[in-house]
Amino acid sequence: MASAAASSCSSISMMFLTHSCASTSSTAHRLLPPGCLRRRLHCHPLQRGPTYLRCLTFHSSAAAPSLPHVVFPHASLTTGTNTKVIDGKAVSKQIRDEITAEVSRMKEAIGVIPGLAVILVGDRKDSATYVRNKKKACESVGINSLEVHLAEDSTEEEVLKHISGYNDDPSVHGILVQLPLPSHMNEQNVLNAVRIEKDVDGFHPLNIGRLAMRGREPLFVPCTPKGCIELLHRHGISIKGKRAVVIGRSNIVGMPAALLLQREDATVTVVHSRTNNPEEIIKQADIIISAVGQPNMVRGSWIKTGAVIIDVGINPVEDPNSPRGYRLVGDVCYEEAVEVASAVTPVPGGVGPMTIAMLLQNTLISAKRMHNFE
Amino acid sequence: MASAAASSCSSISMMFLTHSCASTSSTAHRLLPPGCLRRRLHCHPLQRGPTYLRCLTFHSSAAAPSLPHVVFPHASLTTGTNTKVIDGKAVSKQIRDEITAEVSRMKEAIGVIPGLAVILVGDRKDSATYVRNKKKACESVGINSLEVHLAEDSTEEEVLKHISGYNDDPSVHGILVQLPLPSHMNEQNVLNAVRIEKDVDGFHPLNIGRLAMRGREPLFVPCTPKGCIELLHRHGISIKGKRAVVIGRSNIVGMPAALLLQREDATVTVVHSRTNNPEEIIKQADIIISAVGQPNMVRGSWIKTGAVIIDVGINPVEDPNSPRGYRLVGDVCYEEAVEVASAVTPVPGGVGPMTIAMLLQNTLISAKRMHNFE
Repeated sequence: MASAAASSCSSISMMFLTHSCASTSSTAHRLLPPGCLRRRLHCHPLQRGPTYLRCLTFHSSAAAPSLPHVVFPHASLTTGTNTKVIDGKAVSKQIRDEITAEVSRMKEAIGVIPGLAVILVGDRKDSATYVRNKKKACESVGINSLEVHLAEDSTEEEVLKHISGYNDDPSVHGILVQLPLPSHMNEQNVLNAVRIEKDVDGFHPLNIGRLAMRGREPLFVPCTPKGCIELLHRHGISIKGKRAVVIGRSNIVGMPAALLLQREDATVTVVHSRTNNPEEIIKQADIIISAVGQPNMVRGSWIKTGAVIIDVGINPVEDPNSPRGYRLVGDVCYEEAVEVASAVTPVPGGVGPMTIAMLLQNTLISAKRMHNFE
Repeated sequence: MASAAASSCSSISMMFLTHSCASTSSTAHRLLPPGCLRRRLHCHPLQRGPTYLRCLTFHSSAAAPSLPHVVFPHASLTTGTNTKVIDGKAVSKQIRDEITAEVSRMKEAIGVIPGLAVILVGDRKDSATYVRNKKKACESVGINSLEVHLAEDSTEEEVLKHISGYNDDPSVHGILVQLPLPSHMNEQNVLNAVRIEKDVDGFHPLNIGRLAMRGREPLFVPCTPKGCIELLHRHGISIKGKRAVVIGRSNIVGMPAALLLQREDATVTVVHSRTNNPEEIIKQADIIISAVGQPNMVRGSWIKTGAVIIDVGINPVEDPNSPRGYRLVGDVCYEEAVEVASAVTPVPGGVGPMTIAMLLQNTLISAKRMHNFE
């Protein structure tokens, strides 16, 4: 039945069957339990469907047949001739060093230390990890890190009270509410309560509006898309006049990335879940920014020779050879991309490290602005 | 010398020499004084260069040689087989009738009449005409129209004082500052002073931000792009999944038009002055919205068979046969477009009448929202 369904599918859908992009669909059939396979087959490639990790969760909780032990080849970090690996770790290290120097200079000159406050609600392990990493990153560059951790059953009012406190606290220059919030809270109300001058995430609609408008400047640019553009800049990749395709239109990455590229005079197309023939459009791009959360969705054949690829996707796929049982891959099939692209970000080690670096940079910018420190 | 310059130009630049899209460039050479010709030749097609009307002004004020009397053929309102003319006059009439009925129902039910306040500064004839037309339009649907006309040498504080008064006036549901303001005023400061709940133009960055973000709703959608989408809706033209190209990225039309198309699930590309090979990209579009202010820029050969064209451009070109000495044409060469497009807006009579209809609609929406009237 799986084969019949597969044969009626377009080649676009087919690729979701494979989690190593080099493997064939027949191999892929062996990798997935039938329920999982069906869910993939009926999913448009750009829809924000369940990730494979969720698929695994579904599988284990539903006591589906056990997965065969198939070895997933690791994404090779070798590249095709002349293909440049855009090393996000190295760039983010460089940026953190610059921030460290600036934080130190500011402290010496005016006695002010930038401060970032993080509000965490509930017991999600992933959220706790993100918050811990942000705290560590702050410490590493000399930024003060404040944190409040509220219980899962806290009220919206409690969260708002803490935001209000940080809004009024002159030692806090940036406020970050870790998402997602528990479902009984109105995320929009909570985020809107953060003073725009401290909205280091850059998600306030006033910031986004300014980002969209010519002649206006946002107070903060959202961290992940800002990191993508910074990677291009620091690798000397020109944007002006280039055809750029952004895959995904989320408020957090895709949409602001498209606005940023357009501000830099690229000709931008946004490809999303309702786009027909995405591969045709993507193939025209000189610069691809992909942010859809679909493992290995963009194949080598979708990429124009010499294109530059910024892969925002961080997707866990099963890997019995890994101690954790899974490994991370991007939205773009790395092994195929390096054969055609002129430059490509690896996953992990590409955009990922840039996001926190940009958060630190936004906090520094905020502190400098509040204290008129140049 | 003009010929030499012309021969070194690309075919894209060449078309600016012609103000009837059917005429040849050699004809065009005869239409323009040499100084004017040079200015055209070095201008990228999508740059907001001087319009031909400004060119005429330049010509007359500089006492350049008189223009030869050449007859410009009028844009024919006939169309190719099966091409639909999108009649903005008829649609806007229908919308105004709907607004009239709603204004009357609201007045009867709760005794409230929507009110639009317009602030005009200075003596620009075109601005005075726009304001007069808006006033007339308000009257025609039963909306109260308030107006203040300040002298050219008024201070910014005086303008802000009037805005503040209208912000606090409960009989005013929409405030419109007629642009451009005199050069000694800061346009951004003035526009930002309008209460967002009364920003019927929809130009506030908070409105634009909400327009850009998924899951957010702007209080008002800017009138001209809203009119473009309304024309598509009322002609039963589906947007979802279509390739759309917006030509021009102004804050007033191009940018919000692109955001609106994307909200309706089109795959959108914005073409602008830095775009290479705009015709190649435009040729892929199922829907074209052009808003660059360049007469007859988009040629028939740039249009995919069956595309839908919304032409926002209203460009005056010389026409000695017209009593006014000029006539209006769009950004798209109408005579050629009707041969390939499935539907097209004429100029005038397309998008133009929709803008004021949408302003009236936004004022009605504002009054309804303020009084919780459904």
